[in-house]
Amino acid sequence: MRTTAAVALEAGKPMEIMEVNLDGPKAGEVLVEIKATGLCHTDDFTLSGADPEGAFPAILGHEGAGVVVEVGPGVTSLEPGDHVIPLYTPECRECDYCLNPKTNLCQAVRATQGQGVMPDGTSRFSMLDGTPILHYMGCSTFSNHTVLPEIALAKVRKDAPFDKICYIGCGVTTGIGAVINTAKVELGSRCVVFGLGGIGLNVIQGLRMAGADQIVGVDLNPSKVEMATRFGMTDFVNPNDVDGDLVGHLVELTGGGADYSFDATGNVKVMRDALECAHKGWGESIIIGVAPAGAEISTRPFQLVTGRVWKGTAFGGARGRTDVPKIVDWYMQGKIEIDPMITHTLKLDEINKGFEMMHAGESIRSVVVY
Amino acid sequence: MRTTAAVALEAGKPMEIMEVNLDGPKAGEVLVEIKATGLCHTDDFTLSGADPEGAFPAILGHEGAGVVVEVGPGVTSLEPGDHVIPLYTPECRECDYCLNPKTNLCQAVRATQGQGVMPDGTSRFSMLDGTPILHYMGCSTFSNHTVLPEIALAKVRKDAPFDKICYIGCGVTTGIGAVINTAKVELGSRCVVFGLGGIGLNVIQGLRMAGADQIVGVDLNPSKVEMATRFGMTDFVNPNDVDGDLVGHLVELTGGGADYSFDATGNVKVMRDALECAHKGWGESIIIGVAPAGAEISTRPFQLVTGRVWKGTAFGGARGRTDVPKIVDWYMQGKIEIDPMITHTLKLDEINKGFEMMHAGESIRSVVVY
Ligand SMILES: [Zn+2]
Ligand SMILES: [Zn+2]
Ligand SMILES: [Zn+2]
Ligand SMILES: [Zn+2]
Repeated sequence: MRTTAAVALEAGKPMEIMEVNLDGPKAGEVLVEIKATGLCHTDDFTLSGADPEGAFPAILGHEGAGVVVEVGPGVTSLEPGDHVIPLYTPECRECDYCLNPKTNLCQAVRATQGQGVMPDGTSRFSMLDGTPILHYMGCSTFSNHTVLPEIALAKVRKDAPFDKICYIGCGVTTGIGAVINTAKVELGSRCVVFGLGGIGLNVIQGLRMAGADQIVGVDLNPSKVEMATRFGMTDFVNPNDVDGDLVGHLVELTGGGADYSFDATGNVKVMRDALECAHKGWGESIIIGVAPAGAEISTRPFQLVTGRVWKGTAFGGARGRTDVPKIVDWYMQGKIEIDPMITHTLKLDEINKGFEMMHAGESIRSVVVY
Repeated sequence: MRTTAAVALEAGKPMEIMEVNLDGPKAGEVLVEIKATGLCHTDDFTLSGADPEGAFPAILGHEGAGVVVEVGPGVTSLEPGDHVIPLYTPECRECDYCLNPKTNLCQAVRATQGQGVMPDGTSRFSMLDGTPILHYMGCSTFSNHTVLPEIALAKVRKDAPFDKICYIGCGVTTGIGAVINTAKVELGSRCVVFGLGGIGLNVIQGLRMAGADQIVGVDLNPSKVEMATRFGMTDFVNPNDVDGDLVGHLVELTGGGADYSFDATGNVKVMRDALECAHKGWGESIIIGVAPAGAEISTRPFQLVTGRVWKGTAFGGARGRTDVPKIVDWYMQGKIEIDPMITHTLKLDEINKGFEMMHAGESIRSVVVY
């Protein structure tokens, strides 16, 4: 079949909207009509050429929601008409990782997904002249139709709006999951969140849901305060306004240090501050942000020997097929909010403008609706 | 009263054996006759002058066992004749730290202990000319008699030999506790231990007791193999014998990485290797060794984002008054071994020779018996 996609032809260039060929689903695969997709910093990171593993031409996008159109042989858990959210971290429920309750990093299709192809080693996408186009993060939601492995699709309720729940495919789950799955924050905790962009806001609402007593937001941009407060922030700290040591200030503000701190900036210096403002004896710091290639985190080992714990999280520690439908339910029940974070809704042919707004800091999340 | 002690008069010089004055116990304090004390690298670190917080003159030593001679007013949990192990990490059972099940870092006497004085701000030790002598780590077990707070003494069974259980006051508990309290190693785990000195051996026997399936020891010195094997090591790796990347070799040897890895070297480069040989998704790495002042650990944040956890431990996460008596029981029951690690027994006037043997790598543990 043919479909319409924004194709990243090469690094550092705007994507081009074009008709592409899409082969139907093979065994274990599913054809999905994408109804909406968010624009994420990770797409931008790859498009910019900064991602050392980025390869082109490719169809980017990994934060979508849509409807099953056709299932390949052997697919048993989905049928045409089902509403789904694509999962860049799949859940096969059979690999060593899926069978270990400590991790969500299913390895079932990892090697081929990293190469931009389907598990059989080939791409379903091609140019009209036959040139193959790579998949991206196993999702390629910047195409109106895409093909994914069955294990990379979360089936969700049909009454949830695509243009909001698409965000659960990445940022919402990453932020809330970091709180619930990775940190396992307890009622009454005191917490610090570095970076009040989309991920940071979702960490904050995760903390509110988990019953944190204090939720300190740290950002250089005071314009973030209003939205962060709406999502549950109790205290704001602008490092530019702190006389002296930021870490010392945060330790004092939290009455001894954060029970849990979160880095949602990707800046390795901030990651260090996040660790060091954690409470002696028991504070845990969770790295969510993606650092530039080659960047390293550092600290004195004394920080760990005196009881701080340094962790990271990917996709919020969520097992997508199991956890994503629950988060959709929480949204529909009003336990979490998404609507205020979707600041811009675009058509596919405005997608490059969406990334320009991201660069300018004008958007929290832009969503393309097909 | 007067007692005999090895006094560290200044950094970098041998200790001098001399008579010293010892004031009796004040309220909440206990006078203990030390029967035996181990010589630990931490004493050596301070004596050498490398410890930026080291102050002199002081009576070092923190790994002892002895008998209660006299109790001060208000002491209720101990009486003369009780056998005790001094605790450089006390357990008051009342502070915020003692009341938090996630930590053992009781803060009740921390400030004064760090200054080398008792909780009332004064020292019980002095030269015969009246010059005060500092306490060390709240213990000062290089004196035949010493005074400690009641909360810094673990009461232990009377049939346990002082010259062996003194080691439970530091190295044994640190190594075994890192496994049991900090890592909480599960049955069947695959583990890597860096450094096969006294702490490493105790980590190894902790792992054996916890039921680890694979216990890999890493050390540059092949003479450590025999003893480590006796304590439970299943595989030995000498980094000098590995072609190429040590971390890659360890990941392969453990079938994907260590479920738990332990640094017992204090070398920050080794701490990084220990983290990075931990299993993707769930491997935890525990820092036990004390690094040189100012040294920093580093890694790429990707190591944490893909599921590794970086932790540290102090006194093996043990709550001394509660846990140390249990470890003494384990020794008396034969669940753990100590005797083969006590390689040398000395008199107090041979204490400087004991540190020379430590420097020469001739001893695992030397113990002074009074
Ligand atoms: Zn994303
Ligand atoms: Zn799996
Ligand atoms: Zn010690
Ligand atoms: Zn305490």
